[in-house]
Amino acid sequence: MTSNSPEYIQALSRVVTRENLITHMSNMNTAVKKYGRDQIADERYAHDPDVVVFPNSTEQVQDVLRIADRYGVPVTPRGAGTGLSGGAVPVSGGIVLSLERMNRILQIDPSNLTATVEPGVVTRDLDTELKPYGLFFAGYPMSEEICTIGGNVAENAGGGRAVKYGVTGTYVLGLDAVLPDGRAMSLGGKRLKDVTGYDLMKRIIGSEGTLAVITKIHLRLLPRPHASETMLALFNSTRTAISAIPEAIRSSGVNPASVEFMDSTCARSACSLTGDELPIGESGAVLLFEVDGTDRTTVHSELRKLAAVLEGLGARIERERSAEDNERFWNIRKKVPWALKRMGSDQSLEDISLPIAALAPMMERLAEIAVQYGIHIPSFGHAADGNLHCNPIRPESMTQETWRSILPEALADIYNAAKTLGGTISGEHGIGHKRKRYVRQVLDPVALDIMRSIKRTIDPKGILNPGKIFPD
Amino acid sequence: MTSNSPEYIQALSRVVTRENLITHMSNMNTAVKKYGRDQIADERYAHDPDVVVFPNSTEQVQDVLRIADRYGVPVTPRGAGTGLSGGAVPVSGGIVLSLERMNRILQIDPSNLTATVEPGVVTRDLDTELKPYGLFFAGYPMSEEICTIGGNVAENAGGGRAVKYGVTGTYVLGLDAVLPDGRAMSLGGKRLKDVTGYDLMKRIIGSEGTLAVITKIHLRLLPRPHASETMLALFNSTRTAISAIPEAIRSSGVNPASVEFMDSTCARSACSLTGDELPIGESGAVLLFEVDGTDRTTVHSELRKLAAVLEGLGARIERERSAEDNERFWNIRKKVPWALKRMGSDQSLEDISLPIAALAPMMERLAEIAVQYGIHIPSFGHAADGNLHCNPIRPESMTQETWRSILPEALADIYNAAKTLGGTISGEHGIGHKRKRYVRQVLDPVALDIMRSIKRTIDPKGILNPGKIFPD
Repeated sequence: MTSNSPEYIQALSRVVTRENLITHMSNMNTAVKKYGRDQIADERYAHDPDVVVFPNSTEQVQDVLRIADRYGVPVTPRGAGTGLSGGAVPVSGGIVLSLERMNRILQIDPSNLTATVEPGVVTRDLDTELKPYGLFFAGYPMSEEICTIGGNVAENAGGGRAVKYGVTGTYVLGLDAVLPDGRAMSLGGKRLKDVTGYDLMKRIIGSEGTLAVITKIHLRLLPRPHASETMLALFNSTRTAISAIPEAIRSSGVNPASVEFMDSTCARSACSLTGDELPIGESGAVLLFEVDGTDRTTVHSELRKLAAVLEGLGARIERERSAEDNERFWNIRKKVPWALKRMGSDQSLEDISLPIAALAPMMERLAEIAVQYGIHIPSFGHAADGNLHCNPIRPESMTQETWRSILPEALADIYNAAKTLGGTISGEHGIGHKRKRYVRQVLDPVALDIMRSIKRTIDPKGILNPGKIFPD
Repeated sequence: MTSNSPEYIQALSRVVTRENLITHMSNMNTAVKKYGRDQIADERYAHDPDVVVFPNSTEQVQDVLRIADRYGVPVTPRGAGTGLSGGAVPVSGGIVLSLERMNRILQIDPSNLTATVEPGVVTRDLDTELKPYGLFFAGYPMSEEICTIGGNVAENAGGGRAVKYGVTGTYVLGLDAVLPDGRAMSLGGKRLKDVTGYDLMKRIIGSEGTLAVITKIHLRLLPRPHASETMLALFNSTRTAISAIPEAIRSSGVNPASVEFMDSTCARSACSLTGDELPIGESGAVLLFEVDGTDRTTVHSELRKLAAVLEGLGARIERERSAEDNERFWNIRKKVPWALKRMGSDQSLEDISLPIAALAPMMERLAEIAVQYGIHIPSFGHAADGNLHCNPIRPESMTQETWRSILPEALADIYNAAKTLGGTISGEHGIGHKRKRYVRQVLDPVALDIMRSIKRTIDPKGILNPGKIFPD
């Protein structure tokens, strides 16, 4: 910060201490760069901020927003920057409001089965603190080691256990939030049920930082499962694998904690990294089932019920024989994104969401789209949630220029196929600015109109995370 | 309908057939009266409509709203009228839009684990249809034999199983809804995860028919539990009973399907109806625990774990020895409201929602308020949800005049106590017009301001269910 910095930056410097503000003009250029991107590798989605502030209280967040409101400067709230839709990228420049340093676990309250946290708490850190209490926060995504709870709430993040436990929003009981004009409000509290007025809290959850900045979160906790067990179910075809899922759940009466899906390419690529071998052939598919519960006997018996149904439907089952197997099975699944990286440097990680039964026809449509554009589209994901990570990849043989020109069309085709099959373009990553141009393809135009008018009502000057969600 | 009926009624008569429209002017006066009240006994909350229409399609609902919009006539949507907050009562007269005759189960889809229904389907009827599929809709309230699913969604109704299964909104995957100006929109679909734009669906759930009229609902289904088992836990004091709940859940690792609470008055009154005897004394309390799961062995073992912890905390356990016991235990709980009716003809059934640990101090505060006003306030409810049905009752010795003058103050004191203890005034019944004057006591003023501006944005003419939720 220098004396010829813009006025609003000088105003910000009176709100936070020096170490909690970095600008282009300071010698922290590299740091500023970090706050201009998220986990999307493609540099075309990056945009540097003019200034990054790190408030450490609700009051400071209010001050920052009042300054932004006064000077008409865009504010982009940011958690850990682990998003995959550009939601935390300041596409119009201005202020990045990082919540990283508001990272205190304020209270673990076993008598109410709740935890109260600041938004910058890393998800895994909360989990570590909860263990001694025999409690857990069930709504976490798969990036739990790095993502922050505030970011999860802003995106209504999902993960691999939504089929049993639901997504992040399911566990949010209360929020403190600051509106674009700097007013703060408290919503909900440490209570499970609340029908007092409109559910503003649910409105802020998943609104990608475009309506309010979250500064405190009350979370519901569940009793921590005492046992869990996994198995792999290997199928000769994707169609058989997919249709087995609802049938297995329904006939066994067991609601598994996870049902993860890997197509043949994903499973075999991951195995080449982990050193495993899964006999599934070119057109086969793998499902990973996890069951959790109150004791080993129960969990074992429930997994056996699922296995019996799956075998009847043509699966070969690899059961967990030791804790190492559990780790080994999950390791295959978790290595998939890394294995796919070796297939090509240019990728677009998608997360379409579908009715479960539509996953199989979707996979067939993806195969056609891959052929049509001459690209790879391996797929994996949270099968029982209908949440598919299909991953367009540029093959070595295709130029980057061609890739850049065909990718938007290929994505439009993928999203259209999802829409036609009763699905939508994002189940957990959000729209951000990566997918906003496709929103019209899937959203009801009347609904989009209402969303826009709500945005205008709450943020009339359009300063909070502009350039996101809504098509230009 | 006669030729000198108001113009808007004549317009309505061109939208629906004769048997789907009743007016004051027709010879259906008694029928009209029915649509001027809900389950609140107090006649002061009733108000007759001018006309009742029964559309049978989304298009007809759109037509009705277009007419109301053109003529500026209030429209009050209505399900079965089983509400307890006056939400379905047309306080400004005009049109009651009854969804009763849109009562088709459109599809049960086992391959996607979903059901699609019209709003007028009675909750229990859906359950009956789901049984053969081994599936169930878990988000139902305790009035399942009579309430409709549309009404449950409009109120985001809860019930006795929210601790394990959540409330109605948890299971809504998609909605068709008609806006006050007659535009229809489709939100969500048969998919578990969706972060495409703002979650308008969650905004309409629980908005008490003030933002949109729901015409179709996609529901998530779960595998139907194969077994369940109940027990009663008898305590010498309310405080011990309440504090045992989170401890039992945490230590056992078991998330019960229900934990119902009855204070001594409620339990003993109910027992006098059912012919049971529960040795709890004047200041004791009863908890009813139900556990459900995939088989009898598991359920039995989980209930035993809970019982062991509860006994350690001073409970005497009455275990279920046969299916008759299960019915007997639930019968005691279900008879409580009927038993309380015998304590006095004037009552106000409340449903405050609190942090679990606040239930005990709340009970103490209720005892003080009862003494202060010279009334009875027996209490029961969904303890593990922190949802307490406290029930102010006029004693024989008090005149109706006195009762009517003190009740608003007594309610204000109860709601203030709830607020002070971290709670709110309604967990499942809603605000309607019964509680709107108290909303300012518990809602953040900034939040209330935003709620009002959202209402104005979506319903600028204020024709949809006016006079509800917002204080005058």
